[in-house]
Amino acid sequence: MCQLLGLNCKTPTDATFSFTGFCQRGGLTDHHADGWGIAFFEGRGLRHFVDHQSAVESPVAELIRRYPIKSRNIVAHVRKATQGDVALENAHPFVRELWGHYWVFAHNGDLKDYHPHLHGSFHPVGTTDSERAFCWLMQQLAKSHAGMPSVHELTLTLHELVPQIRRFGNFNFLLSNGQALWAHASTSLYYLVRQYPFAHATLSDQDLSVNFADINSPDDRAAVVVTTPLTSNETWTAFATNELKVFVDGAPTDATLS
Amino acid sequence: MCQLLGLNCKTPTDATFSFTGFCQRGGLTDHHADGWGIAFFEGRGLRHFVDHQSAVESPVAELIRRYPIKSRNIVAHVRKATQGDVALENAHPFVRELWGHYWVFAHNGDLKDYHPHLHGSFHPVGTTDSERAFCWLMQQLAKSHAGMPSVHELTLTLHELVPQIRRFGNFNFLLSNGQALWAHASTSLYYLVRQYPFAHATLSDQDLSVNFADINSPDDRAAVVVTTPLTSNETWTAFATNELKVFVDGAPTDATLS
Repeated sequence: MCQLLGLNCKTPTDATFSFTGFCQRGGLTDHHADGWGIAFFEGRGLRHFVDHQSAVESPVAELIRRYPIKSRNIVAHVRKATQGDVALENAHPFVRELWGHYWVFAHNGDLKDYHPHLHGSFHPVGTTDSERAFCWLMQQLAKSHAGMPSVHELTLTLHELVPQIRRFGNFNFLLSNGQALWAHASTSLYYLVRQYPFAHATLSDQDLSVNFADINSPDDRAAVVVTTPLTSNETWTAFATNELKVFVDGAPTDATLS
Repeated sequence: MCQLLGLNCKTPTDATFSFTGFCQRGGLTDHHADGWGIAFFEGRGLRHFVDHQSAVESPVAELIRRYPIKSRNIVAHVRKATQGDVALENAHPFVRELWGHYWVFAHNGDLKDYHPHLHGSFHPVGTTDSERAFCWLMQQLAKSHAGMPSVHELTLTLHELVPQIRRFGNFNFLLSNGQALWAHASTSLYYLVRQYPFAHATLSDQDLSVNFADINSPDDRAAVVVTTPLTSNETWTAFATNELKVFVDGAPTDATLS
């Protein structure tokens, strides 16, 4: 099973701490050695790194662990191949442009015999069920709205679309357009909100802890969404089965429905 | 003025040598300190690195100079902002997906009052004339062909499209879909083909030389396209004004027309 990591923040935040723990699952403490990827929004721009080497061996992952890239929306993935070869074009997250914004998608799960009718402008480059699902979501969003709608309207549309995919199998995913982070759980997804007063956090996968009070200001706030909890001493909230949540400015919003 | 670097190779080749010289123009020996970017095709997959720091200061550029990424098609750019702020979303090369393939585009020049009618599926994320031109090219290619045509057919279509853009100003560009590299010169573009028997090459911008005979096999072949020659002891061929060339397997092909 793949692993997902998403961050949605009120102010630009670096993911060095969370990404360090997350990378350990890419071939060291867990069996997700078939590539990895991460995308950081910076304003409307995007930094997108993918590799088909494992996240613990990749020189690019090493760079990201050392070089703090500040972002308000981050989507990361380490891959255990279920469908599609181990190849760069099958590494998540995937990126497309819609309405003059980049959209980023990463998936954990397995959609059986999922071959949607892709008659629009979004076609998979690789061979994964995940990229097919992303292209179908983008196609249907493009059909549903003439231009970029509000986060609330997008959430309502996703509530109509997502059940049409999840009946094919496990569909845990993260999706961001740089304004919000949508997260949907079929089987396993957890989140927490780090905010004032910040506390110590200790990584489950590595002997590393950080005092977020030292590195954050009282105005900062970050929501972290993961497949399984990253830290041993923070309280993570499990998603319900088939729950779709949307995070804006570092917190779940009212548009969240289950 | 920005600088372009393109490589089209018969076999996967690393661009460490050429990129090292090219980066020196990103803030050290020349005045192109407003960001940089590079894209490497690996099969159908793509590694895409952009930064709004200068290429000599960027930790990501440093990684690429040290970590050989092998690719058959590479497009790189260092930016001197003429239109659009210095921001990540304005850094070239730009990427879009069309017909299940990634397309990469970088531009050097300045298109005056260029605001094409973008009624299709490709919209700029940033504010540059360059990204508008790329979106228009993608829109028109999508209208001209139902699926990915041959390199020859694409070249013929580009010959129809490019003059409609270059009448707005300087339009030196590189475009690749991972199969071929198209290069068009308004004012300044040079190329050479490195092939057997390989020789020594010495960078113009840095005290560095390499004997390509030591690192290549007789079957290797690489075409290098640049704004101004990178090396002092190789023979570079200047593009004619308004010349569009297409490179496949490390050499210009018969589909080249001027």
